[in-house]
Amino acid sequence: MAEIVNVKVGDAPYDVVVEPGLLARVGGDLVSRLGCRGVGVVLDRSIETSVWPVVEASFPPRFSFYRYVLPSGEGNKSLDRVREAYDVFLNARIDRGTPIIALGGGVTGDLAGFVAATVLRGVPLVQIPTTLLAMVDSSVGGKVGVNHGSFKNMVGAFKQPEVVYCDPTVLRSLPQREFCNGLAECIKHAIIRDAPLLAELEENLPRLLDRDIDYLTTFIGRNVATKARVVQSDVFERGERAHLNLGHTFGHAIETVSQHEYAHGEAVSLGICAAAHVAARLGALDEADRRRIVALLGRAGLPTTGLDLDETVLYSAMLHDKKASGGGLKIVIPQGLGAATVREDVSRDLILEAINSLRSE
Amino acid sequence: MAEIVNVKVGDAPYDVVVEPGLLARVGGDLVSRLGCRGVGVVLDRSIETSVWPVVEASFPPRFSFYRYVLPSGEGNKSLDRVREAYDVFLNARIDRGTPIIALGGGVTGDLAGFVAATVLRGVPLVQIPTTLLAMVDSSVGGKVGVNHGSFKNMVGAFKQPEVVYCDPTVLRSLPQREFCNGLAECIKHAIIRDAPLLAELEENLPRLLDRDIDYLTTFIGRNVATKARVVQSDVFERGERAHLNLGHTFGHAIETVSQHEYAHGEAVSLGICAAAHVAARLGALDEADRRRIVALLGRAGLPTTGLDLDETVLYSAMLHDKKASGGGLKIVIPQGLGAATVREDVSRDLILEAINSLRSE
Repeated sequence: MAEIVNVKVGDAPYDVVVEPGLLARVGGDLVSRLGCRGVGVVLDRSIETSVWPVVEASFPPRFSFYRYVLPSGEGNKSLDRVREAYDVFLNARIDRGTPIIALGGGVTGDLAGFVAATVLRGVPLVQIPTTLLAMVDSSVGGKVGVNHGSFKNMVGAFKQPEVVYCDPTVLRSLPQREFCNGLAECIKHAIIRDAPLLAELEENLPRLLDRDIDYLTTFIGRNVATKARVVQSDVFERGERAHLNLGHTFGHAIETVSQHEYAHGEAVSLGICAAAHVAARLGALDEADRRRIVALLGRAGLPTTGLDLDETVLYSAMLHDKKASGGGLKIVIPQGLGAATVREDVSRDLILEAINSLRSE
Repeated sequence: MAEIVNVKVGDAPYDVVVEPGLLARVGGDLVSRLGCRGVGVVLDRSIETSVWPVVEASFPPRFSFYRYVLPSGEGNKSLDRVREAYDVFLNARIDRGTPIIALGGGVTGDLAGFVAATVLRGVPLVQIPTTLLAMVDSSVGGKVGVNHGSFKNMVGAFKQPEVVYCDPTVLRSLPQREFCNGLAECIKHAIIRDAPLLAELEENLPRLLDRDIDYLTTFIGRNVATKARVVQSDVFERGERAHLNLGHTFGHAIETVSQHEYAHGEAVSLGICAAAHVAARLGALDEADRRRIVALLGRAGLPTTGLDLDETVLYSAMLHDKKASGGGLKIVIPQGLGAATVREDVSRDLILEAINSLRSE
């Protein structure tokens, strides 16, 4: 079985292929699509001895690889690491037709994408995400970039890949915490665009947590399709694409202030709870639906309470976020289940109250 | 009098406005075009006390400026300086609607353009070139970027400006050497696309060298229009845009190996002579036309002989250039006057001979 989602952005649509066992034949498929004789690879160090040999073996004999091995962790999503990657690829004398493969999780994809967008003024990009988060979220949509000091994701580009390869079988060995991280974005997709998926998740969450490969394949395809629909309608984030930021304005602040004690999905989970609190207060979400959201996040192994950070420090960090524009904070909130809206009229007091609601349920 | 060239690239055409005295009203024009209340500025330090006050005074009262002052010189076209600019603009909390103005020569425009292409994943760019080179060449066409170590222009993007403002009166105070630098690119435009301009230049060069403002206005407009036609037909440099590289493969090597003892236009002048030598040898250019080209460059105050660099070192540096692809060097040569062609079959011996022809005429 395979799910193929065609993402139609601008004049360069591309396929996201979701198929168990795909990594064992990814090289042949890539060569037949792009006709290249060599590739640059940005490779997450944590999968260098597990996933990389499978990918490498899938290429034809005498194929050239120019590898930059990226140390794991958000702290490496930096311009310093970008420069190391430039060194590798420029010293290898890659040309403008040489694709760069991102093989790893979200950090790898974001950094490799920025390198591909800028080296030689742009070379083709191929995403091979190896975490659930990267498959359903960061590898689709073209947002790439790195952090600059305390400014998260504030240096980057819009760079669409040529193709995205997702092999759900690699998720079998993903640590539980990272798997749950990805579920936060999937639950977010359900909340903002796909209410039936929310009901399905309430039913089938155990199959996901068991890493049932058949169900994962369908589920990843469905999430990619949801994200693609949003991105297609607003490639450069001038309007509804902002809905994908549900939970992220709170979440980024939590990540930053906690110095990444919370992983991205964990912070987003808390952020979704805060946004749902705001929505309930503003009459945009029933209290019963708010409780369903919080309960599902909790069942998915994600934090919904227990926050122990100062609310005014978090508020300052939110203002610092790039989504702040023209002075006021823009907060994405659920508008019922299956829809979302951007509010610019959320008071400081309500934001502080929403943060404080995360201390205990 | 004013010349306005509309550059039609992709779905975002933009104006290049050439008008004496324009800098005194550039702020009002920009605000009415873009509706912004603040701008980021990347400003060449060498014009901080001369040109900047004029531009600043042209904006409405209480307008916000976030300034990054860039030290002059090619050595500052670096990622280190880009990071300093990110610091300024991110600390100022610019949003995605805040334009970045490039005010200066080619180095300033290239670096500011890269910053505008990447900060917050892209903000609007406004080019206000203050050298002839930047007006007729680097500010038009969207190529932006910086050097990475010894790799010249190998990190960058394609970023089209919202508008380009050229005020020929600022060229009155441009040092002679810099003015002549710009003439090299103008002569290049004539050679590859506009044979009548070559004849006109032979006639009117003294008016240019006298910085006759009326003639400069017409002349800059004509050169911008020529460059725009080439760029429009091939935005991402997959084909004929490469003709603009006439003289540049030799020229970049000369700049690099001489450690920038030769300015860009000077190196390009020598490069054009070398390319003309190759063209004459290959039967693509009459010997009489080759002599016309060399003579005009010389009359424009540009070097055509006297090269004192090792030819094999230069050849290696040419191979190192990004235009090298698939193993062979691509050399742009004149195809008669007013046309050009890309040759991939130029032998190493002929390239070395062409370099050696630059030692004396």
